[in-house]
Amino acid sequence: MSPAENQPNGVERAPIVETVDEEELYGPSQELLQNVKAALQEADIPQVEALIEPLHPADVADLIEHLGPEERRLFLEITKHVIEAETISHLEDTLREEVVDQMRPEELAEVVSELDSDDAVEILENLDEERQQQVLDVIPQEDRAALEEGLTFPEDSAGRLMQRELVAVPLHWNVGQAIDYLRNTQDLPDDFYSLYVVDRLNKPVGSVALSRAIRSPRDANLSDIMETEVRLVPADMDQEAVAYMFRQYALISAPVVDTGGKLIGVVTVDDVVRVIDEEAEEDLLNIVGVGDTDFHDPAHKTAFRRIQWLVVTLINTLIASVVISRFEGTIGQYPSLAVLMPITAAMGGNAGVQVITVTVRALATKEITANSNVWRIISKELLVGFMNACIFAAILGTLGALWFGHIELGFVLGGAMIFNMVWAGFAGTVIPLAMDRLGFDPATGAGPFLTTTTDCLGFFSFLGLATLFLR
Amino acid sequence: MSPAENQPNGVERAPIVETVDEEELYGPSQELLQNVKAALQEADIPQVEALIEPLHPADVADLIEHLGPEERRLFLEITKHVIEAETISHLEDTLREEVVDQMRPEELAEVVSELDSDDAVEILENLDEERQQQVLDVIPQEDRAALEEGLTFPEDSAGRLMQRELVAVPLHWNVGQAIDYLRNTQDLPDDFYSLYVVDRLNKPVGSVALSRAIRSPRDANLSDIMETEVRLVPADMDQEAVAYMFRQYALISAPVVDTGGKLIGVVTVDDVVRVIDEEAEEDLLNIVGVGDTDFHDPAHKTAFRRIQWLVVTLINTLIASVVISRFEGTIGQYPSLAVLMPITAAMGGNAGVQVITVTVRALATKEITANSNVWRIISKELLVGFMNACIFAAILGTLGALWFGHIELGFVLGGAMIFNMVWAGFAGTVIPLAMDRLGFDPATGAGPFLTTTTDCLGFFSFLGLATLFLR
Repeated sequence: MSPAENQPNGVERAPIVETVDEEELYGPSQELLQNVKAALQEADIPQVEALIEPLHPADVADLIEHLGPEERRLFLEITKHVIEAETISHLEDTLREEVVDQMRPEELAEVVSELDSDDAVEILENLDEERQQQVLDVIPQEDRAALEEGLTFPEDSAGRLMQRELVAVPLHWNVGQAIDYLRNTQDLPDDFYSLYVVDRLNKPVGSVALSRAIRSPRDANLSDIMETEVRLVPADMDQEAVAYMFRQYALISAPVVDTGGKLIGVVTVDDVVRVIDEEAEEDLLNIVGVGDTDFHDPAHKTAFRRIQWLVVTLINTLIASVVISRFEGTIGQYPSLAVLMPITAAMGGNAGVQVITVTVRALATKEITANSNVWRIISKELLVGFMNACIFAAILGTLGALWFGHIELGFVLGGAMIFNMVWAGFAGTVIPLAMDRLGFDPATGAGPFLTTTTDCLGFFSFLGLATLFLR
Repeated sequence: MSPAENQPNGVERAPIVETVDEEELYGPSQELLQNVKAALQEADIPQVEALIEPLHPADVADLIEHLGPEERRLFLEITKHVIEAETISHLEDTLREEVVDQMRPEELAEVVSELDSDDAVEILENLDEERQQQVLDVIPQEDRAALEEGLTFPEDSAGRLMQRELVAVPLHWNVGQAIDYLRNTQDLPDDFYSLYVVDRLNKPVGSVALSRAIRSPRDANLSDIMETEVRLVPADMDQEAVAYMFRQYALISAPVVDTGGKLIGVVTVDDVVRVIDEEAEEDLLNIVGVGDTDFHDPAHKTAFRRIQWLVVTLINTLIASVVISRFEGTIGQYPSLAVLMPITAAMGGNAGVQVITVTVRALATKEITANSNVWRIISKELLVGFMNACIFAAILGTLGALWFGHIELGFVLGGAMIFNMVWAGFAGTVIPLAMDRLGFDPATGAGPFLTTTTDCLGFFSFLGLATLFLR
């Protein structure tokens, strides 16, 4: 018996169940991209529509991102009436804004109405106030109120992340009543994973996983089978905390409550996956000082965003230059010092950035908390720094002494190396810990602050020791 | 009506449904930690057990990670017989190995048998071969075969990530038959989100989300309500590809098939969340050259792991030193060159690392693929580099000229700056792209390779221009 035989009214249909080919998983295939571009060039509207028809909205969004700006405009013009709301919500921020800006308020209202409330709010929150109001004005009353309330929650909070579509059932029902309700109610979310059991005040008192509900006899009371160990997410909880909770307890969905403890929405794991991705990326980008990356931003915007960190680098190296300038006399006497001096600074800087990264990650994954493990990481990193410093001091000291035939120079180089790498271990842990304690993001700025100190101390210790012992 | 009134046999019980307090979410509370430590010191076994009894296994694992090594051993000794298998599977790698090493094969076999097959394989794969065999020998035949097969899949593949526990139903059933099967079968996974519909050869032909199944009438045929657009994951697919799929299509679970197309397991989103976390962390750690961070590793292991990258830094700065040494004569003449020369190198290095990070992330998120967007990112980064180079050349040129009262020196500094920052934009994109094309991880090694070039070119262009124009 093949699946086709089981199709309603016997229509033969190629099975779509297929094994994923890893090679073809990422982004649009070369072939698809070429075909779409060709069809766009010939303005062959039916062909473009036919090509994107079988695609998942997320793949259509990818396709759009891989078109040139001119092609993109043409594509959106052509597909305006067949493109799914979900596709728009899958686009990168910059492109989504571009697309949204081209739509009339009525068109936008239609898109927003089709989306789950979390995705709808995400589109609305990026509009300027006037346009936001225009769009809201053409949305039916009952949807509008929910969206307006969604916009009142702080950015990056559970309230923004949650969708309002959920299944709540009263405490006194049994499984049969719940199933009949589900079978007979049209207006339910597309997908849900738990039934939330609420009391008469709409406060959650438990939850029943669907896999539990479907396995229980119809006459089982929900109150008997429900899980009562339910973590309720306050609507103003930070999305990072929500993500931590989902990860820690391997959650699929979690109920969101307002300040009165009433059930108002549900956060699902797919939203959390996006948050986890974003947060990890943020750490990475902050450490190297990019801040935010949007591939589709115009060059001048990207250039401007990166300047901030480059200015910090500049100030950093200027301070280092001032340190060096104090020793101009010594350098004039021994130009070989100029040859060797970048070594201590670079080794300290690199070792320090390693330590910072490890500390920032340990803070992010809560391996270090205010309560504990702080002294353990500091003492460990001091030890690590000291061990590696001794190794490199020995290597470089010998090398420096041989290269310039000057034993004292070797000792100076080795001594400065030990000094700077131990400092890197200390500062690399203490700077992010202190920033965290003071309420700053430990990733941002810890890098430049540290390299300023390792550069200055690197040059100072090396040139200083040289001035003391080589004269 | 309070929830307590609804408890079976009327026993009053404090409701456990509670709103999460963000402050108390992360790690064990100070109070809990103190109480556990105190109880450990007094070897008060019942007290320790009472303290951990209400905790989620993931939270017990956290607690263990926050104890000192001595306390940890005592804790494990005491709780050996009450600790849940899941707690062990939640521990950090190093600690898990420590705990596992202390267990006899029979104890370990018991732990492994209690876990889902994916978590069980994760513990087994880290044992040496002899011990692995000892543990497998005491596991009942039917479980053993599954675990042994699990171990045959490549590391970091879908086969390792999947659990074998799943719900498969035949194509000719209707909803009522499926529900009756679920109600009457004991040996089902704790949690599941879809029914996988298979043909007589056990090949998947569709899937039915539980929310769909529970809403459909009992007489609906599974073949009529099933989703046929199902992406089957081959067991040898890389976990990174699996994660990409889950993210792209917002999946909760996905069926895994063997090379014959037969259904052998299911990957669930909680495993994927862990993978996403790991992959993002890997990118970050590779760029700064830490490789792997295990907070609980002993210092000498950590020190040793970091040496590799520091050796690369060393070679890098030594090459730069050789470049500088070519210009010793010029420096002897103008020691102020030594003061200014770190600036060009540092600015180029920092700008380059920014570009590399953005490129590595764009490759990881598949914004750039082999098919497209390659030239767009290169030309954009060249432009960004040029724009910022001009700005900083102007600032620094003026500053250098004023500081040392030497206009030519300002021009030399500005020229070197433009040269090096444009190079950083070019090399920062081309190096990771080339590494990716050649099949290497673009994050690893791109950093040191780039800074070697920006350091050398920075010193070379600055000192070279100085030699040409200042003499």
